[in-house]
Amino acid sequence: MEKKNLLVGQSGGPTAVINSSLYGVVKAGLQEASVGHVYGMLNGIEGFLQDRIWEFGKDISLVEIEKLKTTPGAYLGSCRYKLPECMEDAVFAILFKKLKALNIGYVVYIGGNDSMDTVSKMSRYAAKIGSDIKVCGAPKTVDNDLVLTDHTPGFGSAAKYVATTVREITIDANVYETKSVTIVEIMGRHAGWLTAAGVLARKYKGDNPLLVYLPEVAFEEETFIRQVEAALEKNINVIVCISEGIHDAEGVLICEYGNEVGVDSFGHKMLAGAGKHLENLLRDRLAVKVRSVELNVVQRCSTMMMSKTDQQEAIGSGTFAVASVLQGVTGKMISFVRKPGDTYAISYGLEDVNEICNKEKTVPLDWIIADGSDIADAFLAYCEPLIKGNVDIPCDGLDLPDFVYRG
Amino acid sequence: MEKKNLLVGQSGGPTAVINSSLYGVVKAGLQEASVGHVYGMLNGIEGFLQDRIWEFGKDISLVEIEKLKTTPGAYLGSCRYKLPECMEDAVFAILFKKLKALNIGYVVYIGGNDSMDTVSKMSRYAAKIGSDIKVCGAPKTVDNDLVLTDHTPGFGSAAKYVATTVREITIDANVYETKSVTIVEIMGRHAGWLTAAGVLARKYKGDNPLLVYLPEVAFEEETFIRQVEAALEKNINVIVCISEGIHDAEGVLICEYGNEVGVDSFGHKMLAGAGKHLENLLRDRLAVKVRSVELNVVQRCSTMMMSKTDQQEAIGSGTFAVASVLQGVTGKMISFVRKPGDTYAISYGLEDVNEICNKEKTVPLDWIIADGSDIADAFLAYCEPLIKGNVDIPCDGLDLPDFVYRG
Repeated sequence: MEKKNLLVGQSGGPTAVINSSLYGVVKAGLQEASVGHVYGMLNGIEGFLQDRIWEFGKDISLVEIEKLKTTPGAYLGSCRYKLPECMEDAVFAILFKKLKALNIGYVVYIGGNDSMDTVSKMSRYAAKIGSDIKVCGAPKTVDNDLVLTDHTPGFGSAAKYVATTVREITIDANVYETKSVTIVEIMGRHAGWLTAAGVLARKYKGDNPLLVYLPEVAFEEETFIRQVEAALEKNINVIVCISEGIHDAEGVLICEYGNEVGVDSFGHKMLAGAGKHLENLLRDRLAVKVRSVELNVVQRCSTMMMSKTDQQEAIGSGTFAVASVLQGVTGKMISFVRKPGDTYAISYGLEDVNEICNKEKTVPLDWIIADGSDIADAFLAYCEPLIKGNVDIPCDGLDLPDFVYRG
Repeated sequence: MEKKNLLVGQSGGPTAVINSSLYGVVKAGLQEASVGHVYGMLNGIEGFLQDRIWEFGKDISLVEIEKLKTTPGAYLGSCRYKLPECMEDAVFAILFKKLKALNIGYVVYIGGNDSMDTVSKMSRYAAKIGSDIKVCGAPKTVDNDLVLTDHTPGFGSAAKYVATTVREITIDANVYETKSVTIVEIMGRHAGWLTAAGVLARKYKGDNPLLVYLPEVAFEEETFIRQVEAALEKNINVIVCISEGIHDAEGVLICEYGNEVGVDSFGHKMLAGAGKHLENLLRDRLAVKVRSVELNVVQRCSTMMMSKTDQQEAIGSGTFAVASVLQGVTGKMISFVRKPGDTYAISYGLEDVNEICNKEKTVPLDWIIADGSDIADAFLAYCEPLIKGNVDIPCDGLDLPDFVYRG
C-alpha cells in the first residue's frame, strides 16, 4: 500500500499542554510504518492555505520534539480562521488540491469548538468530493467547555495554576490584620469551570475563597455586596473568585458596567475589567481595603503548575487520534470517557464533531450552591483527579524553563 | 549567665522567602544554648504592643517549622506600623516594659526600609534608657531597594518569577501571526530592579522583551510610541516590560494620567494601571492588537519559581542575625557582601540601620540604555546568580503546595 502523509495543526488559544497533544500525534505518526512524512501546518489551516508547512524530524529534530511535552503555547502557531459555511466556496477546492499535492492521507486538528468546526467542514467536503482523506480533531481548551467529553486537555493544568495561585493570594492577603477583600478574576466567558477550580485552594471547610461566582448564574450587585459583608463577619480577609464573563439577569456583562468592550474576529466579546469594576463598587460601598487581581493570560500559558495527568492524557489523545485516522475514522473528535468506580481512569472515545462544534458545556447548575456564591463538593470529586501529578520542567543554564521554539 | 529570650518579627509586604529568613532565626535561636525561649510577634511590633505573641516549638511544632522554608507570605503576620519619631513618646516605655516582662534579650526584625526604621528607633531607645536588649534587622524586599547591601532576600525569587512569566507570556503572544503589543506591568514604585529582571526572559540577543522601562528614567509617551513602532518592525509580537511607578519628566505617574490614586498608611501612593493606560494609548495610536498584563501580588507571594540561592541566603541571613545579637551587636542590619571574582559567593556583613532606613537604592543609570528602553549586560551579570537553583515545594494530597499556616 502506498504510504500517505500525516498533517497536524493547532488552532485557538494556547494552553499548557496543547504541545503535549502535538507530541502524541507526531510520535505516533513517526513510529507508524504506514505513515510517510509528518507535516505541521504553521498557524493552522490559515497558514496551510499559504503553503506554510513544517516537517517533523527534519525542520525540528527528534531531540527537540521531546521538549514539546513541557513547552506551553502552540509550537506550530495558531489561527482563528474559520472555513466558509458554503461547501461550494473555492477555498475548499484549493485546500484539497494542496492536501493532494502533499500526498496527505490523514489530518489531525488540535483545538476547541471553533477548531472542531474546521474538522467538520473538511470531513464533509472530503465526503462530498469522494476524497479518502481522514480528518479528526483532538480536543484542547483551558475553558473545559467542549460537549460530549468528560473534560478537555489544558483544563487540568490551568485549574491547578488557578488553585495554586488563589492559595498564594490568600496567604498574601492574610499578612495584615486589616479587613480586606481580594477579587480574583479568572478566565471563562460562558463556562465557569476554571473559576470553580478556585475552590481547590481551600485547605479546610470554610477556608478562602469564601465566595465564587460563575457566568452560569445571573450576578446581582446588591446580593453580592450582602454576601461579601456576611463573609467579612467570618474572616478578616475575604478572597472572591469571579469569572471574567459574569453578567446580570438581562445578560449585560458586569465588565460592561464600567468599561469599553471590543470584539475579536469570531465576534467574541473581548472582556476585561469585571474584577476592577467590582473592586471599585466594594470600595465605594464597604469601608474595607479592596483589590482585584486579573490572572490574565498566564493561567493558560504557564507550565509552572502543569498537571501530569493533563499532560499524559493530552499525549494519549494525540496518539489515539493518529490510530483513529489510520483506521479510517473521519469527522470525529477524540473524547475522554471517565470509567465508573472510585479510582480515576479514562478511556478515549470518538464523537461526531458536528455535535461538538459551536456548542458549549457549562457547569451543571446543581453544582452551583449558596445562592450562586459557592461550588458543591461534586465538583471537587470531578476536578481533583485532573490536577494530580507534577511535571519536572527542564531548565536552561539560568534555571529558567527551557522551552522549544520554532525559531 | 541567665538565659535571655529571643523575639522575632516580620514587617512590610510578603515575599517568597521572608519565612526562610524566619526559619534561619528560629532554628539558630532554638539551637543556641544561651537562648531561652524563641517568641514571635504576631503582626510585627504593632501586634507585640497588643501582647500577641507565639512561641516556636510550642505553638508551632518543630516539624511544622521546617515548612517555613517553602511557605510564602509572612507566617507571623506583618504590619505597616511605624514607631513615633519622638523618643519621649509613651509607646517606647510600654514597649520596653513588655520586652522586660518577657525577659527578651535579643530582637530580630525582618523587613524592608520601613522596618529598619523600627530597628533604628528600638536600638536608639535601648541606648537612651541603658537597656542591654540587642536589636538587629534582617533584610527583606522583592524591590531590592535597600542601600548598603548587594541585594535583598525576596528579590531573587520574585525576579525568577518575573523572568519565567515574561518568557511564558512571550510564548502566548507568539501564537498568532497578527501584529501585537503586550505590556507587562511589574512591581516597583521608585526602583526598577524587578522590571529589569524581565530581560532574563530573553533566550537570544534581540528576543523579547524588546522594550523595558524603569522608574529611574523619565518616561515620555511620544518617544515610547516611536520605540514601539520601531520594535514592531523587528518582531511581529512585541513584549514591553514597565514598572508600575514609571513617571514623566515632571514626576507625574503614568498611571495618574488616566486613573484615580489612593495613599497607603505610610503615605505611599497606591499604584495601578500604568499598563492599562499605555494599552489604551497604543490602541488609539497604532493599528495593532494591544493587551496589558499586570503581574500583581502573585510576583511577590509565589513559590512556583523560588530561587534556591535566594532561599538559602535568606536562611543564612536569619542565622547570622541571631549570631550577631548574641555577640552584642545592636542597631545593625545584616548586609550581603558579594565576594570579588568570577564565581558568585557572598558573605554577611553588618551595616548601621540609620544609614539604611527610609532610603532607596535604585538601578544605576549606566545600566539603563537605549534611550531608557533597555537594560545593559552588567545587570545580567549582577542578577543571574541570584535566581539560580530550584526548590522542590512539598505538596499535599491534591499535589498543590503544602504551606504552613498559623491556624
